Parts: sequence; structure tokens; C-alpha cells
Amino acid sequence: MPEKFELMNARGVRDFLPEESIARQKVIETLRNIFEKYGYSPLETPAIERFDLLSAKFAGGAEITKEIFKMKDQGGRELALKYDLTVPMCKVVGMNPNIPKPFKRYQIQPVWRDGPVKLGRYREFWQCDVDIVGTKSMLADAEVLAIASEVFSTFGFNFVIKVNNRKLLNGILDYAGIKENKMDAILSIDKLEKFGIKTVRDELETKGFEKKQIENVLKILKIKGENKKVLGKVEKLMKSGEGKEGAKELKELFEYCKLMGVDIQIDVSLARGLEYYTGPVYEIYLKNSKVKSAVLGGGRYDKIIGMYIGRGEYPATGLSFGFEPILEALKERKKKEKVKTVTQVLVIPIQTLKESIKIAKTLRKLGVKTEIDLLGRGISNNLSYANSLGIPYVVFVGKKELSKKKVKLRDMKSGKEILLKIEEITKKIA
Amino acid sequence: MPEKFELMNARGVRDFLPEESIARQKVIETLRNIFEKYGYSPLETPAIERFDLLSAKFAGGAEITKEIFKMKDQGGRELALKYDLTVPMCKVVGMNPNIPKPFKRYQIQPVWRDGPVKLGRYREFWQCDVDIVGTKSMLADAEVLAIASEVFSTFGFNFVIKVNNRKLLNGILDYAGIKENKMDAILSIDKLEKFGIKTVRDELETKGFEKKQIENVLKILKIKGENKKVLGKVEKLMKSGEGKEGAKELKELFEYCKLMGVDIQIDVSLARGLEYYTGPVYEIYLKNSKVKSAVLGGGRYDKIIGMYIGRGEYPATGLSFGFEPILEALKERKKKEKVKTVTQVLVIPIQTLKESIKIAKTLRKLGVKTEIDLLGRGISNNLSYANSLGIPYVVFVGKKELSKKKVKLRDMKSGKEILLKIEEITKKIA
Repeated sequence: MPEKFELMNARGVRDFLPEESIARQKVIETLRNIFEKYGYSPLETPAIERFDLLSAKFAGGAEITKEIFKMKDQGGRELALKYDLTVPMCKVVGMNPNIPKPFKRYQIQPVWRDGPVKLGRYREFWQCDVDIVGTKSMLADAEVLAIASEVFSTFGFNFVIKVNNRKLLNGILDYAGIKENKMDAILSIDKLEKFGIKTVRDELETKGFEKKQIENVLKILKIKGENKKVLGKVEKLMKSGEGKEGAKELKELFEYCKLMGVDIQIDVSLARGLEYYTGPVYEIYLKNSKVKSAVLGGGRYDKIIGMYIGRGEYPATGLSFGFEPILEALKERKKKEKVKTVTQVLVIPIQTLKESIKIAKTLRKLGVKTEIDLLGRGISNNLSYANSLGIPYVVFVGKKELSKKKVKLRDMKSGKEILLKIEEITKKIA
Repeated sequence: MPEKFELMNARGVRDFLPEESIARQKVIETLRNIFEKYGYSPLETPAIERFDLLSAKFAGGAEITKEIFKMKDQGGRELALKYDLTVPMCKVVGMNPNIPKPFKRYQIQPVWRDGPVKLGRYREFWQCDVDIVGTKSMLADAEVLAIASEVFSTFGFNFVIKVNNRKLLNGILDYAGIKENKMDAILSIDKLEKFGIKTVRDELETKGFEKKQIENVLKILKIKGENKKVLGKVEKLMKSGEGKEGAKELKELFEYCKLMGVDIQIDVSLARGLEYYTGPVYEIYLKNSKVKSAVLGGGRYDKIIGMYIGRGEYPATGLSFGFEPILEALKERKKKEKVKTVTQVLVIPIQTLKESIKIAKTLRKLGVKTEIDLLGRGISNNLSYANSLGIPYVVFVGKKELSKKKVKLRDMKSGKEILLKIEEITKKIA
């Protein structure tokens, strides 16, 4: 007898057993269907990329670069596992200059980050991105928000779409007299919703911004209310071209969203942590859910692709669904029994293997997901197998019933049994 | 202007642009549907595993261990990218001892091997496995072959399922007086089909087997013909218990396959290169195709799982579809225009953006995969965009037509245009 091997997973990665995998695949299918309805096509990029691509200074930034899983191939080339889906998409666009624009793609794939493992934080996790490359129109931004809105409505969530604009944020900083280290200020502003005004004020002070500057910024960020009013008030205060442009973009986006039937909420304090955003930024939060983090984030990034290919602006906008928080939120609602198998019917031969094989074949032809006992077990063992997996129906194939050209169908939940013809099963279990 | 970045992929990995990704997803969907019809549920395992798991001596073997992509996490742990789907499944079974048996799972995921990159050989490629754990019955082997048969029939291939048995092969070696280094002999026998009898004879001689032994082996391997005859002839020659058991298993498998309507061809020279097989082995080849390599391989491996968990036998059988060769073979047949997008209709507003947005919304509600021009392009630019992606229909939304509550639908292939109501579009493009 061999020695027992210590079986365990690497830190921060997970196996998805059927129960989990079935639920995940269902979510992915829903997402794909919606994305495709809007004319977005799938893109897949490899797990392995060249390290220099992923660590480029205009890519994910220093924080992410620290968490890259690095390796070398047999030729000594420096490689890495991708940490997001945006950089690989920029690569694809750069390497395929003739790809028709707008390039509308979705991508649902795992990414890897060698970071701290905490509750709900993994080293291998899935991202789900929807992007449009090749248009500066706010129509594109409105369209991805329409997709987001349809996704969360389809899942039956109660949610709010928060929208802001980086140009407007820069304009607010201009108004307050902050000309340098704007990104530093924005990173602090990003904490307003989560940590409150005191934290932000303290952090900005620590970063060396002047008291008057800080109060001027906070004054504007405090403006809340109905979209049009907020926009009107903020717009009036904008003096710099960038600020005015940001207000104009927000207005346009607001109009397009209205046309598309998408409810958005303008929140001038929404910032988002990534440096590369250049226009609208968005986040979605669930109401009445234990999932407090954003279930979606995104925005316009008109400059990264240009950086990679040595051109100026190269417009792009898009969003990233929080695949794992969405699954968490879905689980929270679905408290009923879990599905551990795709199987709908288990065929149990009672000394009728030959006929049972044919019956299983017929059921499959009728589109029923069918198992047949492969162990030659007795009835009660077969029933407990069906129970342990949550198979909803079993079919007993006995000689007596067969002589009447019928079988016995048992509803595992109610325990009710009926005699019927095989062709009648599909209706019964539909 | 930034300096141009040298954009390129890592060696042996690929991006799948929409055209390719759509085709791959379609194949995956077909496979999933068939697997699930037989009651197989999805399993997903992480890309990253512990190096010691993947390099265990009873795992993939030395050849594969050489090609493992290794890396370390920040804690210095030795990790690796999985090179197949069998070892991770054995891990899952070992780590989840209460999983109901038989455990019937399918798994469609990428794997990685740091090997030589040649035509059709990649470092990141997809595998597609279907396995049953927990039964020794040949019914299980017949069932996975039934699945394979349905898959290749569904794709419309002309194919042959070759079947043999490792116990029978050992029996043949017993008959020839080969008692030691059986696996060495089997690895040479595996080359019979591809390289012919001379190569095998020479190789066995080089390996030090005696002339008489070799001729005795080859005599049996040459037995060809109708399944029952071949089985009958070989069975008579078997003296060892193992050989007799192998013949019995093959007979059973043959009977079950007949019941399930699966045509198999017994080929006593079929060996397969992996050491871990313990019973039936199978391979599928296409006829009338440029794809000459096996499009499927598999067999029974009753011992690996037991090795990992420190038990004796732990029966399992299954097969691995050659995802990449299948795609190659499918491409070879489909010579018609390729699909570069999922989009079915492009809506072109002619100074009717507001109404066009509503029309796009309606079409999506009706289930039509719909794009709307996001660039404010003119008609001819929109038409060439539709052409470049192979979008089959465009809808012109003009004011005149709108006043009649109609739009103009253009079939991009024929160039034919008709006026119709939006609700009528779905029928037209179905």
C-alpha cells in the first residue's frame, strides 16, 4: 500500500465542484447572452504573457506589479500570469491594427495576483470585462451602462449606478487651486464614501495640501441631490477647460442614459483608484445585500492603448463586473437546496439492464439529462445516491411495467410515483 | 508621444480573437450539452497547483514533469501550472472523500506545458476530459465511448473507435515469455500503427528482448479482422490470469457497446503511451481528414487515485478529447466565410439617434443580437463596417420610413432591401 500523499490546494486558489461550477456556469451564460445581445463578441487571451508587457509603467501600476506571478520558460524568457483583462486587450488591439472599429468585446477569464489571501480575496479569480475601443462618443459609455443595468436587473438585484467624470474631478481640483499631484488628491477623495469626510480631510492634509484648497474641494464634493441640479451647480463653478469638458461629458452621458432607459446617479465624489481613467467613471452597488463592495467598476481610458502602440489618444471605455461579489450576492438570496448535478433523471434497472440502456438512450434523445445506474446497485442504494446528489426524478425499469410498455417515475421530492410511457416523461419533468 | 512598446505574445500561447473564440465556444457548447445529457457535471480546478502534487512519481511521469511551468509565490511555496486534467481530478476526489460515487464529471480547461513549440503544438492548450470515478463495471467504459461516439457523430465526422485492453497486452507479453520490463515493450508496441512492424521489431531488439519473444508478440498483434474473431483467437492463446481477465473485459465492453449502439473496433496492438492505464484503452481517429493524430484518447486507470490517497485500487475510467485537433478538423470542412462577430443586425440612424436607440432596444428584447452605430458615421462607412465584420443585416432608420412606422432592412449578402415593421425583422432574419 503506498504512503498517503498530502493532498492540498495552493494558497488562495479553489476547486469548483459541480455544485459550485453549475452555479458559476449559469451566471456566465446569462452574462454572455446579454453581452451578445448588444453585439459584443468574445475575446480570449492567454494566461501567460510576457513579463515586460504586464509590468509596463502605464499598465496596472506598481501595486499590481508587486503581485505578479512571475516565471521563466525553458528558454529563460521572463513570463507572467495576467492580473487583469484590460492590459491583454490593449495588447490585442495593438497587435491587430486592422481590427474593425469600434471593437466591441467581452472577456470572461481567470486572472492571478500573488497578494494577501483574505475572506473573499483569492489569488486566482475571475474577471468579466466589457469594452468598446475606437470611439470617444458618450453613446459608448451609455451603452456599457445599459448592459450593466440589464445584467443586474436580470439577476433581480436592487442596485444603484454611480457615475462621475475624471475631467470634472480635475476641474474641481483646478477650482480649489490644486495644480499638482492631482492623482494623489483623487486617491484620497476616492475614500470619501467609505471612510467619511474626516478621514479624507486628514489624509489630504498629511499629503501636504493647503487647508483652503481642501475645504474648497470638499465643498463641491458635498453637493448631492437630483442629477440635473448637481450638474448645474458644479458646472457653474468650473473654470478650467477640462472641468467644463467633464461637465459636458456627464450631461451627454446623462441624456443618452435617459434615452436608453438607464437610471444613473451622478456622484461627484466617485473617483476610482486607477490612474488610467480619463473621462467617465462608474461603479455599481447593491442595496439590501451583505455585499458592500462595488459589484462593478469601470470608466473611460483614452490613453493606455496609445501608450502601448506609441500613438496619442486611442479612445476606449468599458467596465469590469465583480464576478465573485455577484456570485456571493446571488448565493445570499438562494437559500434553497443546492444542485449538485446536472442530472434530471436516474434510470434504475431492475434486472432489465438491456432495456434500461435503451430507455436511457431514448430519454437523452428527448433532451433529458439522464444517468443510468453503473454500479448494479439495489433500489435503496440507488435512491440514496439520487438523494445525495439532488437528482429530481428516478425511473424504475421493472419487467412487469415493461410488459405494459411503461416505467415507474418517482418524484424524489414528493415521493409520488406514477406509471407512464417513456415519451410522457419529458412533459412530467418539464 | 510615448515610445512604441514591442507588443508580442509569449512563445506558444495564442489570443483567440472573436472569429476564433466564437468557433471555439460553439464547440464547447456542443460538448457540454452532450456530456450533460449523460448526467456528467462540470468540474473546474485551478490553473495553479502545488508542485509536489503535479510532480508525484505516480502522476504524469518524468517526461511531463520536465515540461512543468514552475513558479514560487511570495511565501516561497513551490507552485506549478497544471499540465493535464486527470491529476487535478484525482486530487479533488482525494480531498472530497464523501463525494457521491460514481462521480461523473467533465472538465474543459486550459493546461500548460513548457515543451517544444511546433506546428499544432502549443504551450497553453485546452483539454476536455470526461471521467467516471467509483465503478469497475465495463458499463462505465461503454458509456464514455457512447458519449465520444455521439460527439463525433454530432460534428458529422467519419471516425473509427479503436479499443484494446492493457491486461490483454500484459497477457500477450506473458504468452511470449516477457515477464519483466513490460511497460518498455508496451511503449514500443504503441508505435506499430504509426511506424510499422520493422520499427517495432528493431526497437524491441535494441531494448534487449529475445528474438523468439518478439516474434511471438508480433504474431498475436498481427491478428486483425472482425471483433468476435479477433477476440476468440487471442483469448485462446491467453494463459495468465491477467490475459484472460483482459479478454473477458473486452468481451463485456464489446457487448455493452453493442447495446448502446456504439461501433468499436478491437485492435490488439493499441497500447497508449501512459503508464497508468490498467484496463481498456481507447483511441479515436478520423477518416477522410488531414488530421492524422488521434482526436481522442483514454482508458481505465484503477490505481492512480489510490496512490494519492494511500489506498489500494480506486476504480476510474475516462477519456480526453483532443480539443485542438477537433477544431482543426472542423476548420478543414468549413470553408465558407468566417464569422467575426456575434452581431446579427447593425442599426444605422439617419438623423434619428433617439428613435434608433429605441429600435435597438426593441430588437434586443426580441432576442436579436443588435449593434447601433456608436461613431455617428455616414451610411457608406457603416456599410463597410458591417461588411468587414460579416454582420448579416443592417437596418436603416430614416425619418420618412419612421413616419410610416417602418424601417429599411438590408440583407448584406444579397443587397436586397425591404421596408418593414420592427417586429417583422425577427422573422426575416431567422
